[in-house]
Amino acid sequence: MTTHPWLAVGTDHPFGPHHLPYGSFSVGAGAPRLGVRIGEQVLDVAAAAQVCHRDARPYSGGDLTALLEVPQEWAPTRAWLTELVADEDHAPVLAEHVHDLDDVTLHLPFAVADYVDFYASEHHASNVGRIFRPDSEPLTPNWRHLPIGYHGRSSTVVVSGTDVRRPHGQRKAPGDAAPTFGPSIKLDIEAELGLVVGGSTQIGQSLSVDEAAEHLFGVVLLDDWSARDIQAWEYVPLGPFLGKSFATTISAWVTPMVALEPARVPLPAQDPQPLPYLTGAAARGIDLEYEVEWNGTVVSRPPYRTMYWAPEQMLAHLSVNGAKVSAGDLFGSGTISGPEAGTRGSFLELSWNGTEPVTLDDGSTRTFLEDGDTVTLRASAPGAGGRISLGECTGTIRG
Amino acid sequence: MTTHPWLAVGTDHPFGPHHLPYGSFSVGAGAPRLGVRIGEQVLDVAAAAQVCHRDARPYSGGDLTALLEVPQEWAPTRAWLTELVADEDHAPVLAEHVHDLDDVTLHLPFAVADYVDFYASEHHASNVGRIFRPDSEPLTPNWRHLPIGYHGRSSTVVVSGTDVRRPHGQRKAPGDAAPTFGPSIKLDIEAELGLVVGGSTQIGQSLSVDEAAEHLFGVVLLDDWSARDIQAWEYVPLGPFLGKSFATTISAWVTPMVALEPARVPLPAQDPQPLPYLTGAAARGIDLEYEVEWNGTVVSRPPYRTMYWAPEQMLAHLSVNGAKVSAGDLFGSGTISGPEAGTRGSFLELSWNGTEPVTLDDGSTRTFLEDGDTVTLRASAPGAGGRISLGECTGTIRG
Repeated sequence: MTTHPWLAVGTDHPFGPHHLPYGSFSVGAGAPRLGVRIGEQVLDVAAAAQVCHRDARPYSGGDLTALLEVPQEWAPTRAWLTELVADEDHAPVLAEHVHDLDDVTLHLPFAVADYVDFYASEHHASNVGRIFRPDSEPLTPNWRHLPIGYHGRSSTVVVSGTDVRRPHGQRKAPGDAAPTFGPSIKLDIEAELGLVVGGSTQIGQSLSVDEAAEHLFGVVLLDDWSARDIQAWEYVPLGPFLGKSFATTISAWVTPMVALEPARVPLPAQDPQPLPYLTGAAARGIDLEYEVEWNGTVVSRPPYRTMYWAPEQMLAHLSVNGAKVSAGDLFGSGTISGPEAGTRGSFLELSWNGTEPVTLDDGSTRTFLEDGDTVTLRASAPGAGGRISLGECTGTIRG
Repeated sequence: MTTHPWLAVGTDHPFGPHHLPYGSFSVGAGAPRLGVRIGEQVLDVAAAAQVCHRDARPYSGGDLTALLEVPQEWAPTRAWLTELVADEDHAPVLAEHVHDLDDVTLHLPFAVADYVDFYASEHHASNVGRIFRPDSEPLTPNWRHLPIGYHGRSSTVVVSGTDVRRPHGQRKAPGDAAPTFGPSIKLDIEAELGLVVGGSTQIGQSLSVDEAAEHLFGVVLLDDWSARDIQAWEYVPLGPFLGKSFATTISAWVTPMVALEPARVPLPAQDPQPLPYLTGAAARGIDLEYEVEWNGTVVSRPPYRTMYWAPEQMLAHLSVNGAKVSAGDLFGSGTISGPEAGTRGSFLELSWNGTEPVTLDDGSTRTFLEDGDTVTLRASAPGAGGRISLGECTGTIRG
């Protein structure tokens, strides 16, 4: 293991020099700045660019947005940062622009443009179908032909660590005569991967699967908090609305797709063969090890490699009608659920809609979220050095 | 009729001094500017503010966005502009900041934050239910309890006059064995009212019906172009996605709510009584006369006053779960359809899903949109002077 002494990080650290995720940080009352994480420290990218006499415009604005707008700068920026962290000579001039993570506040890493949530796990979609529509086939007839998705609320995407207020709304149990109003009593998570889009297209342009790959900048972990009672009452016929739009949490750190290259794996078999616009060499799976921690107990390990649709297929589908793609667009993979009970990515599934309580390490039991509960999503993947860890995604419920 | 000679507009002009809608315009290769329309002319608001030694920041940025952010400036700005257009003494100093509409290019009037589309016409929802779900009750059980809505794609909202490219996508007719890919063959409109939101809330805050009224800045006409074949195949279970996200057209001019005050009328009776969070004195209807013109033939006159849910109820519902509300949020009323055939706001309904062709004045017939077709939405309402006209909303289909 080689170490980078000036940054005190080993090359096999989960946030080592083979990872280099981006985020937005501030120190004290200062304005937010674009940072790159190296071990337990963050380097101020715009300040480093100025020291290095490099054009700092792609790193301006306090977060990743400006860099997302210029895909041609992604690889040169990574090459420059890789060289920077490896070179001991930079220590004296850059030291003042490196901060311990303990000393900074993290912000939303980019301005979210349009937010779409997909539904790409066959096991999740099947489980939800069995729970919500017990008299029908678990998968709707369209499910294996296209990545089903819907638009969500961009302005309620928040950064990891933000408290989540339990939403109020209408809900009606099947036996009730009329709906009632109050706090959600079936508050849930959805453990997902979030894909961060860069570059842009014109309205009317569509992206092939291989072109879509060029627009995928990176990934975050994403928790699509869901109020199941509100959702169940409202969602026919136009889909989820208030059951989802109160909060969506993402990691503070955006892991570049290129850092995940060693984790790319073939997709599960797709049957029937997708239509040509959904095919291309770039459509691959991702071998992420993922875990869902509920008040300190790991309750599930959803296997991302079992996801049916590839991120590149989702983005190609999203744009095939000519929808504009913008820097800062975010899309969720949909809840990640594997075939076994211990690999389900929502509490709706883990507790089978509240009928099979989950026991935590302290002996308490849960079906849905209680006030004060904390959920943390973590994931790791093979990297070019050792394994890399995605930025964690955590939130605590407040009443 | 009093005239305002320096602006050559009568007080009973549909864009007279009792209207004063805002838009974004540019002259030649110049940058976009916030403008206020007076008759067939537009006044540069930021330039006028500088001439009048008034703080121009709420009028900066080239469109209405900055003013939407400061609700406390809405009434003073309107009072100032009203005084300005009435006062002949301003003519010499302001003349150079007034442009004929023929000499300017109009742009999207504000940066669209989150976009939501509601479904507030009982007649439309019932008609669609009969067409898409003939074996079920036309209205879903939730419809009279809450304003059903879903999020749309903000980045594909375009200004009136923008051509609309026919979208491609998957569609599957009931008799087909598998879906096919190609251009939509059931391209449609939805004639709606768009509500423009100003001010902002924090995540976790909700707006009462009366508070919601304070966040409604104004209205536009809105055409929610819809590919019915794509929509029908994709929309179960998570709602419309690519069938809607290729283009949504809005007027270039935003009519302030205050100019519509003479048009506010009681809502139709709501039965059952809505839950308390959906009630308040501010929940009122709007008496708009609306017309849908297809290649020059008026094919429908949808009566907005028949809409079941008030704009204030829609915004209260949207925020009741604590969803953040932002300046620039836009929501559509949903297709406006009255009880008679000649008052339906979509071609899906007018042609009863293609089974009853519509005859245009030139003798041609239509079911759905053909390439080259132009649809124009117009509306007028009682104003404090004469009737006011909302900005028209038009688009032409390109293959």
